[in-house]
Amino acid sequence: MTDPRFYTNAGPFSLGEIAQLAKTKLSDDADPGKQIVDVAPLDRAGSDELSFLDNKDYVDVFANSAAGACIVHPEFAARAPRGMALLLTEKPYPAYAHAARAFHPPHRLEPGISPRADIDPEARLGPDCRVESGAVIGSRAEIGARAWIGTNAVIGPGVVMGDDCRVGTGAAIFNSLVGHRVAIYSGARIGQDGFGFAPDPAEHLKVPQLGRVIIGDDVEIGANSTVDRGSGPDTIIGERCMIDNLVQIAHNVQLGPGCVIVAQVGISGSTKIEDYVFIGGQAGLTGHLKIGAGARIAAQSGVMRDIAPGTIMGGSPAVPIRDWHRQNIRLARLAEKKEA
Amino acid sequence: MTDPRFYTNAGPFSLGEIAQLAKTKLSDDADPGKQIVDVAPLDRAGSDELSFLDNKDYVDVFANSAAGACIVHPEFAARAPRGMALLLTEKPYPAYAHAARAFHPPHRLEPGISPRADIDPEARLGPDCRVESGAVIGSRAEIGARAWIGTNAVIGPGVVMGDDCRVGTGAAIFNSLVGHRVAIYSGARIGQDGFGFAPDPAEHLKVPQLGRVIIGDDVEIGANSTVDRGSGPDTIIGERCMIDNLVQIAHNVQLGPGCVIVAQVGISGSTKIEDYVFIGGQAGLTGHLKIGAGARIAAQSGVMRDIAPGTIMGGSPAVPIRDWHRQNIRLARLAEKKEA
Amino acid sequence: MTDPRFYTNAGPFSLGEIAQLAKTKLSDDADPGKQIVDVAPLDRAGSDELSFLDNKDYVDVFANSAAGACIVHPEFAARAPRGMALLLTEKPYPAYAHAARAFHPPHRLEPGISPRADIDPEARLGPDCRVESGAVIGSRAEIGARAWIGTNAVIGPGVVMGDDCRVGTGAAIFNSLVGHRVAIYSGARIGQDGFGFAPDPAEHLKVPQLGRVIIGDDVEIGANSTVDRGSGPDTIIGERCMIDNLVQIAHNVQLGPGCVIVAQVGISGSTKIEDYVFIGGQAGLTGHLKIGAGARIAAQSGVMRDIAPGTIMGGSPAVPIRDWHRQNIRLARLAEKKEA
Repeated sequence: MTDPRFYTNAGPFSLGEIAQLAKTKLSDDADPGKQIVDVAPLDRAGSDELSFLDNKDYVDVFANSAAGACIVHPEFAARAPRGMALLLTEKPYPAYAHAARAFHPPHRLEPGISPRADIDPEARLGPDCRVESGAVIGSRAEIGARAWIGTNAVIGPGVVMGDDCRVGTGAAIFNSLVGHRVAIYSGARIGQDGFGFAPDPAEHLKVPQLGRVIIGDDVEIGANSTVDRGSGPDTIIGERCMIDNLVQIAHNVQLGPGCVIVAQVGISGSTKIEDYVFIGGQAGLTGHLKIGAGARIAAQSGVMRDIAPGTIMGGSPAVPIRDWHRQNIRLARLAEKKEA
Repeated sequence: MTDPRFYTNAGPFSLGEIAQLAKTKLSDDADPGKQIVDVAPLDRAGSDELSFLDNKDYVDVFANSAAGACIVHPEFAARAPRGMALLLTEKPYPAYAHAARAFHPPHRLEPGISPRADIDPEARLGPDCRVESGAVIGSRAEIGARAWIGTNAVIGPGVVMGDDCRVGTGAAIFNSLVGHRVAIYSGARIGQDGFGFAPDPAEHLKVPQLGRVIIGDDVEIGANSTVDRGSGPDTIIGERCMIDNLVQIAHNVQLGPGCVIVAQVGISGSTKIEDYVFIGGQAGLTGHLKIGAGARIAAQSGVMRDIAPGTIMGGSPAVPIRDWHRQNIRLARLAEKKEA
Repeated sequence: MTDPRFYTNAGPFSLGEIAQLAKTKLSDDADPGKQIVDVAPLDRAGSDELSFLDNKDYVDVFANSAAGACIVHPEFAARAPRGMALLLTEKPYPAYAHAARAFHPPHRLEPGISPRADIDPEARLGPDCRVESGAVIGSRAEIGARAWIGTNAVIGPGVVMGDDCRVGTGAAIFNSLVGHRVAIYSGARIGQDGFGFAPDPAEHLKVPQLGRVIIGDDVEIGANSTVDRGSGPDTIIGERCMIDNLVQIAHNVQLGPGCVIVAQVGISGSTKIEDYVFIGGQAGLTGHLKIGAGARIAAQSGVMRDIAPGTIMGGSPAVPIRDWHRQNIRLARLAEKKEA
C-alpha cells in the first residue's frame, strides 16, 4: 500500500474497470468485479492490490508474488502464481502507468498566494495559481493559469510561463519563455548567463549573453539541472523533452521535441539535437555538433562528431555501438594475451 | 591556527592528554605536559600546534615542518625534524580525527525558531530545534530533537526525521523517512519524483512515483546531490552511508550500510548495492544491478553488470581492476608500435 | 534584436565608433556614419545590426547573412554578401565582445535592501549594496561596496567579500574570504565541510574541516557548482578563474590564476593546479596531484598523475593527447580486423 503520509488514493476500482482503462485483456479466470485497492510492487503487493511485470529479470519475483492482480505480457502468463488475476498486454509499462494514474491522479494542491511569497506588483498571474512561502516573482513576469510555484522558487523579471506549470522548491528561472504544462524540478537553474568569454591569460573577456531560454510545452527539467540562456541565439528545449537531474545544457543548445536526457549529461554550446534523441547518463557532447533525429547515445559516451539520424553510439570518443562493443571485446582479449 | 572568524577552540590540551585521547604513543623525548593550542597543517603549524602525516607524498613537508607535535606512523619517525614531539600510531588519520575533534567538537548553534521560518501549525518539532530564517516545514512533518534546519531549507509535508539531524541551507526533503543524526548538505534535493515514464515519440507517459526515500541513521548526503524517491518500492540509503556532492541516486536504488559514494557518481534506477561498497568519483552504474558487499569501483568507471562481493573494478565498461590496468598498458604499447 | 523584456540597449552606435571600440579596421567600402542599433546572430541580424563570424563552420551562414555589418577575419572577407560592412580583425571574438558590451554594458540594478532580506545586526555592508528578497546575511559577515546579493542567497557568519561581488539566487557561501568583482552563480554552494572522514566499516570517523575557501578577485563560479572548504589548509581559487556549472572542487584544492574549468568537472582533494590550466567538461582529477601551468586537459579525461606545464592530455586514464588519438585509431583498426 502506498504510504498515506504522502499519497492519496482515488480507488478502489474493479478489475474490469482497470482492464479497460489500462487497455489490457483480463485473463479468463479472473473476476471482473473484484475490487482492487491500490498498486504496489510485485514483492509487496497483497491480494487486493495490482502490480506489473515489465522486465524479465523479475520473472521469479512475479512467480512468487502475492499480488491479487498483475499487468503482464502474455509470454509470462504461464509463470503466474495460482489465483493471480492477469491483465494481459504487449506493453505492460504504459498499461501500468494508466492504472497507477487512475489510483493516484496528479494531485492539485489548493491554490492561493502565501503571505510569505514576494510577488512584484507588476507581475501578472493567471487564475488559480499556488505560490508558496518564500517564492519570489519578479517585475513584469507573466505566469499562466494554475501554476504551482514552490517554496523559495524564484521567477525572474519578464519571464513568461504558460498554463499549468510547476516550479519546484528553490528552482530559479530567468530570461526565459516557457510553454504550458512545464515542470521545473527542485533546484534547477534556468536562464543564467552561460560560459561565454574570450580566454586570455591576462584577463578573460566576458561576452554579454543576450539570448533567452525557450522551453516548449510538456517539458520536464530535473532537480539541480542547469540550462544556460543563449548568447545571442536562444537556448531551445523542444516540447515534450524529458531532462533528468544534474544535467548541464550550455548556451545556444537546441533540443528537438521529445528528447530524453538522462542524469548528469552535459551538452556543450551550440550543439543541435533533433527529435526524439536518447542520451544516456553522464554522456558528454562537445559544442557545435548536429545530432540526427532518433539517435541514441549510450551512457558515459563522449560525442565529438555529428551523428546521423537513427544511429546508436557508444564509447569515448563515441563510435557506432557495434564498433564500441567490438573494441571492448578486442581490448579484453589483448589484455589476456601473453605479451607479443 | 584555525581562523577565529569561523572556528572556536576547546583547547589547549597537553601532549599527554592528546596522546591518550588519540590512542597514540608519545615519543620518549617528548614532554607530556607541553601545551598544544590547536591543530594545523604540516606546512603552517607552529611550535605549539599539532599536525599529522598520513600520506607518504608529504614526508618532505613533514621533515621540514615547524609543528611542535605530529601524529605519525613509526616508520617515518626518523624523518622528524629535531625537537618535534611525535605521537606514534599505525593509523595516523583516525588518530588525528580524534585530536582535531577534541579541539573543535561539532558545535551546536543556539536552538530557536527564527520568526522568518514558516512552520505549518500541524508540523511537530522535538525539543531544542533550531529553525533558521526562510526555512519552511510542511504540514504533519515530524522532526526529532535538536534538529538544525538551515536557512531557506524545506521539509515537505509528512516527512519524518529522527533526532539530531542537520539540514543545510536551501536543501529540500520530500516524501522521506529519515533516521537519527543524518546530515543533508546545502542544496541537496531528496524525494522528488524520479525519471519514470514510458517513452513515446508522440507523448511520454508519466508513471506516478509512489514510493519514498528511507534514510538510515548517521547518513550524510552532500551538497547539491539528488536522491529521487522510489517509484513504488522505496529508495533506501542504508545507515552510515557517506555520499559526496553532486551525486545522483535514482528511484528504487538501495544502498547497504556504510557505503562511500564520491562526488558526481550516478546510480541508475533499481540498482542494489550491498554493505560498505566504495564508488569513486564520476563513476556511473546502470539500472537493475546488484553490487556485492565490499566491492570497490574506481573513479569514472562505467558499471554495466553485477559485481561480486569484494571485487575491485575499473574502466568503462568496468572490468576487474587488474584487467583494466592490463588493458591500459597494452593499449599504450599498441599506440607506440609502428603500424602493422 | 535582443528581447527588450530582458535587455536594455545603450545603442545606437555608428560603424566608425564600433570599429574603433572593437579595435577593428572598417572595410573601405563601408560608411563609417551608418547607424547600428544592436548586435545579433548571423542568421537573425538585420540590415541595421552587427554580427560576427568566429568559427569557420559557419562561413555559409555568414555568406547568406542579412547583417548590415559583421566582425570577421580578413581571410573570410571575400565570402561576405554584397553590401555587408566588414569590421576586419585577426581576433573576431574579443572584438565582438567589446562591441556587444558597448550595446549591453553589465547592468546595475538599483541598490537597496529588501524588507524581506534578513541581515544580522552584526553584519557590515558597504555602500550601494542590493540585497534581495529572502537573502540571509549572517553575523559578522563583511560585504564590500555595490554587492548584489540575489533572492534567497545566503552569506554565512564571518564571511568576508570584497567590492562589486554578485551572488546569484539561492547560492550559499560559508567559511570563505572572497575577493573583489567575484560572481557566484545561482545555487552554487561554497564553503561547506568536505568529504573528510576515516573510513571504517563499523563507523566512519568524521574529521573536522577547519580551513576556509579563499577566492581571488574576478573569479566566477557557475550555477549549482560546489566548492568545499579546506580541511585545515584552505581551498584556494586563484584570481580570474572561470568555473562553469555543476563543477565539484574538493577540500584543499588550489587553482592558480586564470584557470578555466568547464561544466561537470570534478577535482579531488588537495590537487594543486597552476596558472591558466584548461580543463574540459566532465574531466576528473584524483587527489594530491600537481598540474603544471598552461596544461590543457580534454573533456572526460581521467587524470591520475601529475601533469607537466604546457602539456595537453586526453583519455581516461589520461595520456598525452597525441598518444590518446593514436590509441583511439589503433583500437578502431583492431576492432575492424578479422579475429587473429
